[in-house]
Amino acid sequence: MVGMTDRPNGRGRPGYDLESLLQTAVKVFHERGYDGTSMEDLAKRLGITKSAIYYHVPSKEELLRLSVDRALDALFAVMEEHESREGPAIDRLHHVVRRSVEVLVDEQAFVTLLLRVRGNSKVERRAVARRREFDHLVGQLVTEAEREGSLRPDVDPALTSRLLFGMVNSLIEWYRPRQGLNTDDLADAVTKIAFDGLRAR
Amino acid sequence: MVGMTDRPNGRGRPGYDLESLLQTAVKVFHERGYDGTSMEDLAKRLGITKSAIYYHVPSKEELLRLSVDRALDALFAVMEEHESREGPAIDRLHHVVRRSVEVLVDEQAFVTLLLRVRGNSKVERRAVARRREFDHLVGQLVTEAEREGSLRPDVDPALTSRLLFGMVNSLIEWYRPRQGLNTDDLADAVTKIAFDGLRAR
Repeated sequence: MVGMTDRPNGRGRPGYDLESLLQTAVKVFHERGYDGTSMEDLAKRLGITKSAIYYHVPSKEELLRLSVDRALDALFAVMEEHESREGPAIDRLHHVVRRSVEVLVDEQAFVTLLLRVRGNSKVERRAVARRREFDHLVGQLVTEAEREGSLRPDVDPALTSRLLFGMVNSLIEWYRPRQGLNTDDLADAVTKIAFDGLRAR
Repeated sequence: MVGMTDRPNGRGRPGYDLESLLQTAVKVFHERGYDGTSMEDLAKRLGITKSAIYYHVPSKEELLRLSVDRALDALFAVMEEHESREGPAIDRLHHVVRRSVEVLVDEQAFVTLLLRVRGNSKVERRAVARRREFDHLVGQLVTEAEREGSLRPDVDPALTSRLLFGMVNSLIEWYRPRQGLNTDDLADAVTKIAFDGLRAR
């Protein structure tokens, strides 16, 4: 059982951690949809009682919040990295795109959940707002790079950001680890195509 | 009411056509999910009886089939166009990408439905198989263009096709007509970024 540890004395707190709980929750949300998943479903899948889940989180919505925040925190952390903050805007943008690919691969299930959130609750609306904030930061980088003269001037910055992250985010639809394609190859392909195009030179 | 026509004599067949039925069905499928939509829901939305719907189609699944086929037929028609069949592979690929953007804009609701199909029924599996066939044709074009020496040789053709159509397909997530961005501008932006990259030259 995922994350279950031996508890020979049979006492005390449930023998699995929040991390395993989240990993399983996000998997079940994908299979059944968030709305279609009950705490009972999660308990069954984990082979534990509902109250053992409530030991960790007060509600299903809190599991959603923790899951989408995990994706969002990882993306915002990229923006805080030195290479995203110093140097020519085009290099910072390149770094952000490359690192975002890595985050998508590392946190694929969580980012997938984030990208499917539509704003149907307070938690979802907050996630949508944070996503917009991230998109806005990318948009600013694109605008700066265009002003700098290092990005083509004939495509609108907002449109550029959307297409760029449209390509990046598409990974969640088809990328599966262990297909003979590692994260580095993937990040290389994305940045080469996005910045230099498909055409041979 | 969408597609309702005046029928002063009150006799004969239901006074709306299959086209209006499909347009409404695809809208309701998006709102409630295909599984969550009943023929009763559709009838209510159209303001007609269920039997009026059954006059046009034998089942909800047939509405799904007609909807995804509409998207697929439009995409396969692009592959049949003269410019997709004659000339250097890179120009044919460019044409296919450009025209696919147009199909996505023209048939956005139907393509969106197609892209969300997961293979849970015979109709869905057939749609998934046709999608794969289309992806395969794109992959062949990319391979040919690479052999021709006109595409960069350092990115795998299968990966290139996926990223390329990842960018194209992302349109369905954010593109809304009448935002001051017409189909031509959109198709220009996609092909410029994909083929020549973001970097200024």
